[in-house]
Amino acid sequence: MSAAMDHGVTRWIGFRHDGAAGFGRLDGETVAVFEGDLFDAPTATGRTLPLADVTIDLPCRPSKMIALWNNFGALAEKLELARPEAPLFLIKPANTYRPSGATVTVPEAAGRALYEGELGIVIGKTARDVSEAQAPDHVFGFTCINDVTSAPILKADASFTQWARAKGLDGFGPFGPVIATGLAPESLTVRTLVNGRERQNFPISDMLMPVPRLVALISQGMTLEPGDVIACGTSVGSGPIPKGAIVEVVIEGIGTLANRFA
Amino acid sequence: MSAAMDHGVTRWIGFRHDGAAGFGRLDGETVAVFEGDLFDAPTATGRTLPLADVTIDLPCRPSKMIALWNNFGALAEKLELARPEAPLFLIKPANTYRPSGATVTVPEAAGRALYEGELGIVIGKTARDVSEAQAPDHVFGFTCINDVTSAPILKADASFTQWARAKGLDGFGPFGPVIATGLAPESLTVRTLVNGRERQNFPISDMLMPVPRLVALISQGMTLEPGDVIACGTSVGSGPIPKGAIVEVVIEGIGTLANRFA
Repeated sequence: MSAAMDHGVTRWIGFRHDGAAGFGRLDGETVAVFEGDLFDAPTATGRTLPLADVTIDLPCRPSKMIALWNNFGALAEKLELARPEAPLFLIKPANTYRPSGATVTVPEAAGRALYEGELGIVIGKTARDVSEAQAPDHVFGFTCINDVTSAPILKADASFTQWARAKGLDGFGPFGPVIATGLAPESLTVRTLVNGRERQNFPISDMLMPVPRLVALISQGMTLEPGDVIACGTSVGSGPIPKGAIVEVVIEGIGTLANRFA
Repeated sequence: MSAAMDHGVTRWIGFRHDGAAGFGRLDGETVAVFEGDLFDAPTATGRTLPLADVTIDLPCRPSKMIALWNNFGALAEKLELARPEAPLFLIKPANTYRPSGATVTVPEAAGRALYEGELGIVIGKTARDVSEAQAPDHVFGFTCINDVTSAPILKADASFTQWARAKGLDGFGPFGPVIATGLAPESLTVRTLVNGRERQNFPISDMLMPVPRLVALISQGMTLEPGDVIACGTSVGSGPIPKGAIVEVVIEGIGTLANRFA
């Protein structure tokens, strides 16, 4: 990333160091340690840590992760899906969250697990019934998400698609490594690499509902809290995760979410 | 409730008093205040408070609420649904939780809201891949739930049933007033009253998957944490909530969850 592209972008990282949890601003290979509330004027401690000396933790603890279905033009076209009038989503529970660097042990119950690289919107300010014009003020920043899915569970019952369970197993919602603030999401591209080979590469500008519209519509009747995450949905190229594979979700300007799947 | 029926049953309540949150054992109209972790040997403070002097709060803070669909024989028969082979469920997020006594303001986005009286299983000990034989040891107790649903949102999109959003709006998951321990769930009956008139009355013994089977199957690949709640699904008699109505979910042996819907 060039210095010019990086202008005005801040990357917030969670970490564990000496047995304690902390967070800070990631400056290249150094973490400037902060304290207080990430979403409410955190203060710099003046302390720094080499990134190599910490274990990356989640950049925030969402009270909910909202995961979109059918939100990209290319995928909708491929699957011959109509353009939805409202955001279509499920909830991924807290047992799915894993930081970048963590190994995800795919549960036996899952069968074949699929990777889905996605952009994550991180809420910064409580949002309820906000307009599209107001929405950007409630967005803190953006992160990378792997919205892992069990293919066999999803379609096992003809009467009820098991979105929540297929996408809700332990470790099926890794996100991070950071939350980047100050980015224009419409210019971003999501790439997913499996063992270093690119499998997905799609532009956020192809989203059927762009970020302000998503946040505004989801907030109708549903309060979004600071730290809540909206997984914006995937596009074409999702596929099975080979046993032992390393899956990376790379969004230039944010960073690389990397997890090994055991 | 007779003293004999009450033998061995303990009811845990959350409350707010003098601006602070607390919890305790409900003994008739008195709260015996406890401290520590409700799920890990809490200790009695020796202090008591009249129930009339506290505001009832949630009895626990679930990291997730798992809500079952198609889990009662009578409803499956009425709707001509096949008996599912696995628990079919969605996740209700934290913004839905409300204590007994709270007024629920139905969001404008919801349109017509339906009541669904349900039994809630409260997890007491971390459960992952447990067997049916082990499951009861991971259950802390039981509570009453109103699994409120927006009828128009649920079916608005033909390609994707909006379970998460229709059941995930603010205030759509009231539960309480207590968690009762020491009850045999198969003997319980769920009644739902709307403005004092009984609208649902169904036995838990009609559940397609009884409590140990539910907990065991849901725990396959998905960790259940202490305080997590499984809403066991409703049976026949669900219907619209009139504006301003008081909906009560009554389970003899647990208590009455009462909420006004504005």
